[in-house]
Amino acid sequence: MKIAILGGTGSLGKGLASRWIKAGHDVLIGSRDLPKAQEIAVQLGLESSSGMLNIDAAKICEIACLTVPFAHQESTLISIDDGLQNKIMIDATVPLMPPKVMRVQLPEIGSAALNAQSILGEQTTVVSAFQNISAELLQTDAEIDCDVLVAGDFLDARNTVIELAADAGLTGWHAGPLCNSVAAEALTSILIAINKKHSLAHSGIKITGH
Amino acid sequence: MKIAILGGTGSLGKGLASRWIKAGHDVLIGSRDLPKAQEIAVQLGLESSSGMLNIDAAKICEIACLTVPFAHQESTLISIDDGLQNKIMIDATVPLMPPKVMRVQLPEIGSAALNAQSILGEQTTVVSAFQNISAELLQTDAEIDCDVLVAGDFLDARNTVIELAADAGLTGWHAGPLCNSVAAEALTSILIAINKKHSLAHSGIKITGH
Repeated sequence: MKIAILGGTGSLGKGLASRWIKAGHDVLIGSRDLPKAQEIAVQLGLESSSGMLNIDAAKICEIACLTVPFAHQESTLISIDDGLQNKIMIDATVPLMPPKVMRVQLPEIGSAALNAQSILGEQTTVVSAFQNISAELLQTDAEIDCDVLVAGDFLDARNTVIELAADAGLTGWHAGPLCNSVAAEALTSILIAINKKHSLAHSGIKITGH
Repeated sequence: MKIAILGGTGSLGKGLASRWIKAGHDVLIGSRDLPKAQEIAVQLGLESSSGMLNIDAAKICEIACLTVPFAHQESTLISIDDGLQNKIMIDATVPLMPPKVMRVQLPEIGSAALNAQSILGEQTTVVSAFQNISAELLQTDAEIDCDVLVAGDFLDARNTVIELAADAGLTGWHAGPLCNSVAAEALTSILIAINKKHSLAHSGIKITGH
């Protein structure tokens, strides 16, 4: 599958890219900085031409994944114009508000995923996922002891994202409609708090009872 | 410890009560319905006098735990007057809005826990916990494969609740300030969705990475 990582030069973007490249997907590294996108593409073992501006990656991909910090979510999505119409966009954005990253602070619309859907409009299917996965571990071959909550309003789109999670070595779960993304987004602050208070490096969550 | 279960005649209340009784705590069953409270107290192996009105249980307890449905949270807390001043109240309320219980629907103030704190005022220390635990399993001796996210603004109070979780056979985690309760409250709808979509009976979450 031709996957554009929008914000693919950050640590989460590089982590997901490396896992999906290994799984055989055709990965495009998108950035607002073309030379940087090309440099990271080469670092990941791709042709330098797989690094491109976000707008170009969005246009030619089959599916996109947004991995920018919350502060850049809106400007990035506006910059890609209508390149994502009739496509799925996976939103991995966590609404962290530095410096208080251990405090859940949700955007007024309810969640980062709902914010993305509102910016992109209904021609794009937003599915949220990957908010709780360590970007550092994704960049290694390590087995990751953390599941993926997949929220979205359409079953088929959630299934696609659950398959992509599996390709990255992760178990994805149907977490209900897109508005439920708030749980996964809020959990990231919880996991940061747990890391600090319980002296852990990479706390995560696993769904039990199966 | 003398623990009042406010709404102790419901399934979550009975579950927590039975576990804390086994752990040796002095448990009071509170209800708005006195005969029902006395009946459940006897069912749980207590004297009938351990069943009482919520207002009386609140007055004489050292610590309280609220286990009513969200629709009754406000009326219950108002009814106990100032019985919880200078005490910890554990809020287990999940803001489910039937019939759409698989859809996260948070109260305007942000979470049920913040709602409780706002009603009780700052003389009571609200700590939120136990939103994700199966009431059905709590009423058995089964080992429960689900952790407890403990949110509250005071470290000592969170520690007390983490100890009470351990007494109920559960692992509690410091989940940060009370506003972070939103993660655990939202997770309940996710777990209901996962139960349905993945055909599970009692999905839960475990914190990993330790």
